[in-house]
Amino acid sequence: MYMPVILGTAREGRQSEKAAKFVLVELEKAGLETELVDVRDFLIGHTDNTGTTELARKWAEKMKRADGLIIVSPEYNHSFPGELKLMLDALYQEYMNKPIGICGVSAGPLGGARAVEQLRLVSVEFHLVPIREAVYFSEINELFEENGEIKDAAYSNRVKKLLDELIWYAKALKTEREKEYRKE
Amino acid sequence: MYMPVILGTAREGRQSEKAAKFVLVELEKAGLETELVDVRDFLIGHTDNTGTTELARKWAEKMKRADGLIIVSPEYNHSFPGELKLMLDALYQEYMNKPIGICGVSAGPLGGARAVEQLRLVSVEFHLVPIREAVYFSEINELFEENGEIKDAAYSNRVKKLLDELIWYAKALKTEREKEYRKE
Amino acid sequence: MYMPVILGTAREGRQSEKAAKFVLVELEKAGLETELVDVRDFLIGHTDNTGTTELARKWAEKMKRADGLIIVSPEYNHSFPGELKLMLDALYQEYMNKPIGICGVSAGPLGGARAVEQLRLVSVEFHLVPIREAVYFSEINELFEENGEIKDAAYSNRVKKLLDELIWYAKALKTEREKEYRKE
Amino acid sequence: MYMPVILGTAREGRQSEKAAKFVLVELEKAGLETELVDVRDFLIGHTDNTGTTELARKWAEKMKRADGLIIVSPEYNHSFPGELKLMLDALYQEYMNKPIGICGVSAGPLGGARAVEQLRLVSVEFHLVPIREAVYFSEINELFEENGEIKDAAYSNRVKKLLDELIWYAKALKTEREKEYRKE
Repeated sequence: MYMPVILGTAREGRQSEKAAKFVLVELEKAGLETELVDVRDFLIGHTDNTGTTELARKWAEKMKRADGLIIVSPEYNHSFPGELKLMLDALYQEYMNKPIGICGVSAGPLGGARAVEQLRLVSVEFHLVPIREAVYFSEINELFEENGEIKDAAYSNRVKKLLDELIWYAKALKTEREKEYRKE
Repeated sequence: MYMPVILGTAREGRQSEKAAKFVLVELEKAGLETELVDVRDFLIGHTDNTGTTELARKWAEKMKRADGLIIVSPEYNHSFPGELKLMLDALYQEYMNKPIGICGVSAGPLGGARAVEQLRLVSVEFHLVPIREAVYFSEINELFEENGEIKDAAYSNRVKKLLDELIWYAKALKTEREKEYRKE
Repeated sequence: MYMPVILGTAREGRQSEKAAKFVLVELEKAGLETELVDVRDFLIGHTDNTGTTELARKWAEKMKRADGLIIVSPEYNHSFPGELKLMLDALYQEYMNKPIGICGVSAGPLGGARAVEQLRLVSVEFHLVPIREAVYFSEINELFEENGEIKDAAYSNRVKKLLDELIWYAKALKTEREKEYRKE
Repeated sequence: MYMPVILGTAREGRQSEKAAKFVLVELEKAGLETELVDVRDFLIGHTDNTGTTELARKWAEKMKRADGLIIVSPEYNHSFPGELKLMLDALYQEYMNKPIGICGVSAGPLGGARAVEQLRLVSVEFHLVPIREAVYFSEINELFEENGEIKDAAYSNRVKKLLDELIWYAKALKTEREKEYRKE
């Protein structure tokens, strides 16, 4: 199973990168094929919404192959970063009938919970399946050691719960999608 | 497949009943086992949230058996009716891994779209799968003939699209749920 | 200035009552006229939405006189309790051009943040002004001593910030409302 | 009173420009000082979030002077365009205690209602006041004549209602803001 981890902010000094890398390692430990897809490498401007540019095509290739995806995104003013929305809006068909797990990140104690909610509503429009489990990385500036290790071990278990649900849905939906392809 | 249609308002003079009955007939035509579950018959007060009262048990029985559900709900002040929330909050486990289709109803032109969004976020917390397709019954006071027939034939096709997606997910998720039961 | 504090849940064993009482005392300390308005005393059913019953009239009297309001509400399944929505839906005109501060409550770490967001959208429809400051009471089961004292002193300052903004808006809007009455 | 109209999409072939220009003319007719602020001229990337670039400063100048603002924005996948979010996120202090009116635009019948809701929640975080009145430009591709004239005259009245409420709040809040400046 291939499950990319999308890092949703391109800001200088972004803290979410640490959370995304932590999630990535947990996916690898679980034996999933994965990779970090950094929105910095996919700064898809408003002109790329037709999905015809090189960047949009590269992003489409990844999503076409994906069995599901995880977004790790900070919350800026109770919602997601603009560059993440531009990237997401570039595709449509490629998301269809795949599960999405969302991890929020914030400097404060609420772990990006509002951004998670707004992203869930966007993902429904893409025919993605927003799963219930989520991980809320709060107090992000103090959450990691210098060497990138997480200070609060409880997060491993939270990512595991997210993964369990994500994989459950990925299997269920893949089986059904493949039935359809056989019919065609 | 058993897919109940929940009518989400108990108000006097409610117009959503017409929309719910229309949806019900479309489900029957599609060969689904269904029934109208009227929130008036499930006025589960705040004291029933433990799911231990007779009404809550009856509602739990229906949802346990369901392969998915449809809610037909008006929008009151950009959200859902309180009596619908009380009814939904009475259960939890019974919803798990089932798809939900939501039909909004409004007197104005926006078809209850805001209530649909808020309900989607609630449904994610229940481990329900909010599908992308939705039906927006707008200008509800003028939408039906005296005899209950809908004036705008396009709604049949909209319900059909909702049903197609709902059934797709119901199959996918049922198969996966049953695999699990066999494992246990 | 009269600013009632609405306690938004009627459940047995509700923990939000402690948070509401704490907020109430902070308002009294700040010299505001206030009182606890308990949704248990305003179980306005779906039949009272016309605002013509005794309970609805009593609630209308309070809101008519209010210069603003505070809601203290738990989050149930990412939204507000049904009984609170029923109570709010019973009025409309009485809310107009008044500020609303919302305090979320949760057993977990996110302080009811999702319920706050959904309530804000409802409040905009009432021509209420949802202010930016909010208080998120998290881990509510461990937050108070047996005697009702709050364990984490930082909450006093959070309520103070909420009050400062609420009073600022209450003054601004009252002045403007009164100009209008003089014109009429 | 100075009330800029923000056009929230930079896409090729954008239809919202017609709606924004229509709103602009209605503001001019009402005697307000206004101008079209086109997100195409404010493509503030993620690196400008510190508000220190030339573009961000120019945008800050406008908002500092504004007594309120109107956003005209299409809905892309149930939310706002990424370029609009990037532009909004570049400022904070400049928005404080000013009213915001939002006009949604969509190709379908729902007039961008979901994007309006998500923007309202973002605006609360900025200490902006999201007003109740909104204009929903639906079926945008068929709404205007070749010469830019609107086909449905009812929209003039809708913008008027939005303006009435926006001006009411702009006055109330300006008076209160100025009291504060005098104190300082």
